Amino acid sequence: MTVHDREESELEFGRVLAFSDGVFAIAITLLVLSIDIPTVPEASNTLPLPQELWDVRWQLVAYFLSFAVVGLFWVHHHRMLANLRGFDGRLMALNLLVLCFIALLPVPTELLGEYGNEAWGVWPYAVCMACVSLAMGAIFHDAHARDLLREPPATAAALRAQRLRTVIPAAVFLASVPVAFLSPLLAVCMWGLLLLTRRVIPDP
Amino acid sequence: MTVHDREESELEFGRVLAFSDGVFAIAITLLVLSIDIPTVPEASNTLPLPQELWDVRWQLVAYFLSFAVVGLFWVHHHRMLANLRGFDGRLMALNLLVLCFIALLPVPTELLGEYGNEAWGVWPYAVCMACVSLAMGAIFHDAHARDLLREPPATAAALRAQRLRTVIPAAVFLASVPVAFLSPLLAVCMWGLLLLTRRVIPDP
Amino acid sequence: MTVHDREESELEFGRVLAFSDGVFAIAITLLVLSIDIPTVPEASNTLPLPQELWDVRWQLVAYFLSFAVVGLFWVHHHRMLANLRGFDGRLMALNLLVLCFIALLPVPTELLGEYGNEAWGVWPYAVCMACVSLAMGAIFHDAHARDLLREPPATAAALRAQRLRTVIPAAVFLASVPVAFLSPLLAVCMWGLLLLTRRVIPDP
Amino acid sequence: MTVHDREESELEFGRVLAFSDGVFAIAITLLVLSIDIPTVPEASNTLPLPQELWDVRWQLVAYFLSFAVVGLFWVHHHRMLANLRGFDGRLMALNLLVLCFIALLPVPTELLGEYGNEAWGVWPYAVCMACVSLAMGAIFHDAHARDLLREPPATAAALRAQRLRTVIPAAVFLASVPVAFLSPLLAVCMWGLLLLTRRVIPDP
Repeated sequence: MTVHDREESELEFGRVLAFSDGVFAIAITLLVLSIDIPTVPEASNTLPLPQELWDVRWQLVAYFLSFAVVGLFWVHHHRMLANLRGFDGRLMALNLLVLCFIALLPVPTELLGEYGNEAWGVWPYAVCMACVSLAMGAIFHDAHARDLLREPPATAAALRAQRLRTVIPAAVFLASVPVAFLSPLLAVCMWGLLLLTRRVIPDP
Repeated sequence: MTVHDREESELEFGRVLAFSDGVFAIAITLLVLSIDIPTVPEASNTLPLPQELWDVRWQLVAYFLSFAVVGLFWVHHHRMLANLRGFDGRLMALNLLVLCFIALLPVPTELLGEYGNEAWGVWPYAVCMACVSLAMGAIFHDAHARDLLREPPATAAALRAQRLRTVIPAAVFLASVPVAFLSPLLAVCMWGLLLLTRRVIPDP
Repeated sequence: MTVHDREESELEFGRVLAFSDGVFAIAITLLVLSIDIPTVPEASNTLPLPQELWDVRWQLVAYFLSFAVVGLFWVHHHRMLANLRGFDGRLMALNLLVLCFIALLPVPTELLGEYGNEAWGVWPYAVCMACVSLAMGAIFHDAHARDLLREPPATAAALRAQRLRTVIPAAVFLASVPVAFLSPLLAVCMWGLLLLTRRVIPDP
Repeated sequence: MTVHDREESELEFGRVLAFSDGVFAIAITLLVLSIDIPTVPEASNTLPLPQELWDVRWQLVAYFLSFAVVGLFWVHHHRMLANLRGFDGRLMALNLLVLCFIALLPVPTELLGEYGNEAWGVWPYAVCMACVSLAMGAIFHDAHARDLLREPPATAAALRAQRLRTVIPAAVFLASVPVAFLSPLLAVCMWGLLLLTRRVIPDP
């Protein structure tokens, strides 16, 4: 194998991890940009909290929800990448797909915060997160198929369990799209349920 | 313990540190977005400094204050994390709670810079920082309770001292909330006092 | 050689890599700021997707295109830097030139998303990316001329191949500038072709 | 020395470097936010470049200037920090002072880009950069005085030379403040001269 070939097929693992973690860290911090501070007219100045600021509460809720979602996905992404043997161009392309939808999240978050009581304020968020889940599933699938996992699932049952863990979030997010047209709130609750089940705090 | 269990309970320490430091670095740099440059009308062009720009001075003060606050909290966060044995899901969840309020800070900073002479321009900042302090206290408490500190406090007095160091800022920030309704300026001075007492420059 | 001289001529390699990767990670994440969420009037609230949001689709396309472009250039930049022996002031200046146009990309991306059917919405993007390509070519050229490559191309043919790989993208982007005045869409297709040929997913 | 004392006086060197480099990387990338894309009216659509976009050229110049300035200061900051034995609270406070003015730079850059033909569009930039220079000088001075330099200047002449290198930029930036009131352009040329003299590309 020539230098050129090797150069073509492998990327320095540590730098790809740092780059991916960096995009997650920036995306999670940019979520704050989805909160707009309104200008408060003079007349409101005597209230404990002017109506204009009180109206920001749903944007705050959307911020906290998205922070939890990105944080949770970072933890999963972290674990999945820690289990890879290395990165080649194809895994990097799939990884960029994950990062691309994670970095897009401030947009549906802002939509959710401002128009969360409408179907179209809710389903773009669900579609975006479903794409993240599917892209992460594709990384796992591809790495397993090409034997690039550091510690592959030992049994068929373990493999099935691992697959389910990436498929379930995608399924829930996709299922919430039609639900959003019935009740936007119900769709958001489905995501909340997902957060609780695949909780950040696992039992030891 | 199976691979899956271990994977569930531990996160690569270095990457969590880098991720957390990254969020702090981004949040501290995004504070600059709380400063809006006004459009200056032609008529003001002959002054040494147009009134519109002079009006930005409180936003600048809020920027410098927040920069010092985030910088100080980074130093404390840095020290606390350096004393942990590792990260599991629960500590990561608490850590995300800290980061979540740190990343939110540009919002109350902008509020403070624009409406710092009103109670409701000041108390959201205090509440946000109290949440950061409490979440950092929770990390210390949890890590100590589950014996995850690299060098736990040797004596009961040292433990009490360490606890006080996380409780006092939370108490001061919370106490400044009612004070803000009497005098917003006094509330801000209370934070300044806190910065000076828990100063970044300790005696050797 | 005195300390001062050495200090003048060398930079810590790892930190320059981390700094460059950081700028790429931030620039790729800031691309999301080129997408503006419009305010939706009450009347549109009953539609599955209001016209105002549907109008955002070209900005989304521009976002995905730019994400792919920056991601691809990061991979190439990554490989080129991994092949350097170290960094001195001159290589750092050329590297800053690359980063400077990469960090500028959100501006032509926004232009492309909003005015992609006009020549002047398209050619600034092409010029910006041509500058990135040329600056990356200059790094390779300079490092090769001063014998700073870790593994220089073994044969004259390999050297020519490496040179072509940096020249072709610059040539395609520059060629697309006049094309944009005939058909903006055709110019964008030329870039897409480039992405496909120099694809992120190389054969093993 | 107890654990608590040591914890008080030292910070993990690598993480402080990464944090500082991170702030530089984010600040340099956020400079792009100082460029606003104007809305172009329909009537302009037939021109090769509408007047509205042509008006952006000074903002572009300000962007490139600031990118070069921050890049150059990063290189100097990089070298200075590489020569430190470690970080304690006092050096960290001075370091935060440097970062605080670097992170502020997008504001005077935007001012410069939009009102560069007015004195008050130019002198805030000069003041900001003078503060960066002075804070960097303070780090060197403090580290030298407390014997924290890895390789202190060997001779009195070398020490004087090192001091001059931090004092001269501060002096030039401060001197450009009154000059800006005579001619804003001349003030900017003084900075350009500084960039050329203290060039990124040193002779080997």
